[in-house]
Amino acid sequence: MLNYKVIFNIVGFLLILDGIAMMLGIPFSIYYGDDDILVLLLSGVGTSLIGFILYYLTKSSNKDIRKREGYIVVSLGWLAMTIFGAIPFVIYGAIPSYTDAFFETMSGFTTTGASILNNIESIPHGLLFWRSLTQWLGGMGFIVLSLAILPILGIGGMQLFIAEVPGPTKDKIHPRVRETAKRLWGIYVILTVAEIILLFVGGMGFFDSICHSFTTMATGGFSTKQSSIAYYTSPFIQYVIVLFMFLAGANFSLHYYWLHRKIKPVTQNEEFRFYFYLIVGFTLLIFFGRVFDSTIGVELTFRESLFQTVSMITTTGFVSADYEMWGVFFHVIFFLLLFIGGSAGSTGGGIKVVRHLILIKNSALELRRLIHPRAVIPVRYNKSTVSQDIVLNIMAFLLFYIAIFVFGSLVMSFIGLDFLTSMGAVATSLGNVGPAIETVGPVDNFAHIPDIGKWFLSFLMLMGRLELFTVLIIFSPAFWKK
Amino acid sequence: MLNYKVIFNIVGFLLILDGIAMMLGIPFSIYYGDDDILVLLLSGVGTSLIGFILYYLTKSSNKDIRKREGYIVVSLGWLAMTIFGAIPFVIYGAIPSYTDAFFETMSGFTTTGASILNNIESIPHGLLFWRSLTQWLGGMGFIVLSLAILPILGIGGMQLFIAEVPGPTKDKIHPRVRETAKRLWGIYVILTVAEIILLFVGGMGFFDSICHSFTTMATGGFSTKQSSIAYYTSPFIQYVIVLFMFLAGANFSLHYYWLHRKIKPVTQNEEFRFYFYLIVGFTLLIFFGRVFDSTIGVELTFRESLFQTVSMITTTGFVSADYEMWGVFFHVIFFLLLFIGGSAGSTGGGIKVVRHLILIKNSALELRRLIHPRAVIPVRYNKSTVSQDIVLNIMAFLLFYIAIFVFGSLVMSFIGLDFLTSMGAVATSLGNVGPAIETVGPVDNFAHIPDIGKWFLSFLMLMGRLELFTVLIIFSPAFWKK
Repeated sequence: MLNYKVIFNIVGFLLILDGIAMMLGIPFSIYYGDDDILVLLLSGVGTSLIGFILYYLTKSSNKDIRKREGYIVVSLGWLAMTIFGAIPFVIYGAIPSYTDAFFETMSGFTTTGASILNNIESIPHGLLFWRSLTQWLGGMGFIVLSLAILPILGIGGMQLFIAEVPGPTKDKIHPRVRETAKRLWGIYVILTVAEIILLFVGGMGFFDSICHSFTTMATGGFSTKQSSIAYYTSPFIQYVIVLFMFLAGANFSLHYYWLHRKIKPVTQNEEFRFYFYLIVGFTLLIFFGRVFDSTIGVELTFRESLFQTVSMITTTGFVSADYEMWGVFFHVIFFLLLFIGGSAGSTGGGIKVVRHLILIKNSALELRRLIHPRAVIPVRYNKSTVSQDIVLNIMAFLLFYIAIFVFGSLVMSFIGLDFLTSMGAVATSLGNVGPAIETVGPVDNFAHIPDIGKWFLSFLMLMGRLELFTVLIIFSPAFWKK
Repeated sequence: MLNYKVIFNIVGFLLILDGIAMMLGIPFSIYYGDDDILVLLLSGVGTSLIGFILYYLTKSSNKDIRKREGYIVVSLGWLAMTIFGAIPFVIYGAIPSYTDAFFETMSGFTTTGASILNNIESIPHGLLFWRSLTQWLGGMGFIVLSLAILPILGIGGMQLFIAEVPGPTKDKIHPRVRETAKRLWGIYVILTVAEIILLFVGGMGFFDSICHSFTTMATGGFSTKQSSIAYYTSPFIQYVIVLFMFLAGANFSLHYYWLHRKIKPVTQNEEFRFYFYLIVGFTLLIFFGRVFDSTIGVELTFRESLFQTVSMITTTGFVSADYEMWGVFFHVIFFLLLFIGGSAGSTGGGIKVVRHLILIKNSALELRRLIHPRAVIPVRYNKSTVSQDIVLNIMAFLLFYIAIFVFGSLVMSFIGLDFLTSMGAVATSLGNVGPAIETVGPVDNFAHIPDIGKWFLSFLMLMGRLELFTVLIIFSPAFWKK
């Protein structure tokens, strides 16, 4: 029997926070004289109140959370915060359709960054702040989820990174989560503040600096400008954002090390190295593919190539140039980048660099296994042996990922989107990236997708954010069997 | 040290057969008064002569073939037969470019069916016969390869089907290959003859009946008509071809059973059932997707849906209607069908139904494993347990398949093809299907692909036909290490 009380108790608690967070943008609206203050106040207080009632009604002495409750709490928590988080957009009228508002908010909390907004600059500051904050909170939630909770739930090879996290033992969820959370959130806050300062120094307004720093560190990609980072032509601002996207897409437990002046664990981490090489490799590929025909100069060509590569690999989704104008070959490249997905333990979504790395290693070894069928040839990662169970689990993850991508593309094409848009929209939603190709390209948005498609893509964003298994497992019959 | 002598000895022997086979179409050219007799005679005698010299020079008492020689013999044999098989097309001038002729011949021997010909009806009968025969020989070679040789080489989970083959022990390659080959070739010949008779009775000319039966049983898809099977409007002919495509795409060791009146091993075979359900499912999906808007009547809509579904799932590639005219959703469906790939132990190419089945089963179990992490939950197939090694090998196969597909699409788009054509051309080549989507759709051909692309696609056909690993392993450093 599931402990429903504790599930709803936690969801209630999350809604209290959700409501409080909605109101945090009010000072900006007051400062700028915007008219969304009452809406934010009402939505915030209402959400917190509902959360409090739920929390109060489910108070119980039995606080046991086992794995099965864990899966539900995580999925339901994210869902509940989205359901309520969408409300202020609708009440104010910035997004009249609840479907659109739900899509936008899910895109926020899952740090995807896909938007249905056609005129972002017309939205008042309080709501814009809330929109950026959903991503920052989503990123914060995911760090803890991926580094403290998912490894214990046994999801998708995440066990591999338990050793990485500087923290106490892994026996019980509660103390571990609390301790890990404290350390990692500290890093998250420090890096966010650092970015705010640098962007502000670089000439971006204070409000925009905060919003963009929120959505950079979350690898979210919501911008306060319709044209995204292309609005800011300053090389300094763009390079700062590249740097922080890069940091946000790296394993946060590594930041713990270098902030404590331990460099070796960072430079010797195999995932980090591969992540770095991927970025360098794709940047150079794109740069050299463009620079000889380029009319915009070497530096800008390089900066555009670097920015878009980092933005896609880290699953941020900021845009500083329209890569769809660069030719068919680059469509394919950027479509592929949707499937990389940042480092494990980062705020990035998608498949993750480490899974690619383990699978590439295992594939190479599979050929050796065929030649020497009697030899036991295990995968090695960061100097230890990876168990076959974990390799199998990572493979199963990738196959589920592909199956969902294929099925999703079929669904989107069934509701009338063209083939490439279907694939792009599904890949970018599942990978929590943001922009894709064709009619959902870097300078387009998702407003034109039919409602049913928006609900479906929202579901894919959630599934992608929660590393598939967390959601899939709830739909499996074995989960509900005694 | 590899036993090169025995490798070249076998390749020489294959070239002798290759040359003889080229000349088998001469009677038809004599009958129809065509002018390709001398070309076929010269090419055939020349190829056989070169084969004989190679064979004679490498005669040796040491006939040991170990696994490592096995991989090379298989890859090199297929390649050598193609290199020489292309010659008559060039000498006669039916295909002036050697690149094109190589592509066409590789498409033949690998039973792919992708063609560069723009006017098939203009080609003399002897050459057309040779073109069809390459597929029939390729299919025959592959049955033995997949049911007798690959399991011993340990490729891609093919071990699973050893039990299926009614034959002697599995210790030594030689006696086993010979015994299995005899039985399966018998079935292959019987079914081919049966189809020739039925097509002839249905009103197809004798020559065309032979050619189409050759390419049906090989799941090849070369037609003697530019418009493929759409040329024959007779429902009887089309249904006969559907039946034999279905048989050719099923495991040939099952045919052995039902031809001996043992039905149970067939109906209880899990792969066969899944294969059957896939065909029924996709046919109905396509039928009901079209029938309500159809202006061609219920029967023809059904027949078109069935024909195209069976043709693609079995990797035959015959065309009786242009599915690209049916709307975007069907593009996606038919693109997906390129990835199914017939049954293991059939002449079909691609991934194979059984691999999908094992992976689907394992994925479902993976969720159960997450819920019960201490339980050992193995995959079961045809009432026995599948070892984790085999599951891992099948997963590695699929991941290699996907990686090659992705890399291939990148290459094709790099040489200038559009995104969907790139993906389609690579998928259909790797899966040995034939037609794909966009500019290489069911009513198009591959003539317009740049030369470098044709060489690349030819390589993919070979790799797909030889179940990836056979070719990949030769490129792995471990293979060449002492």
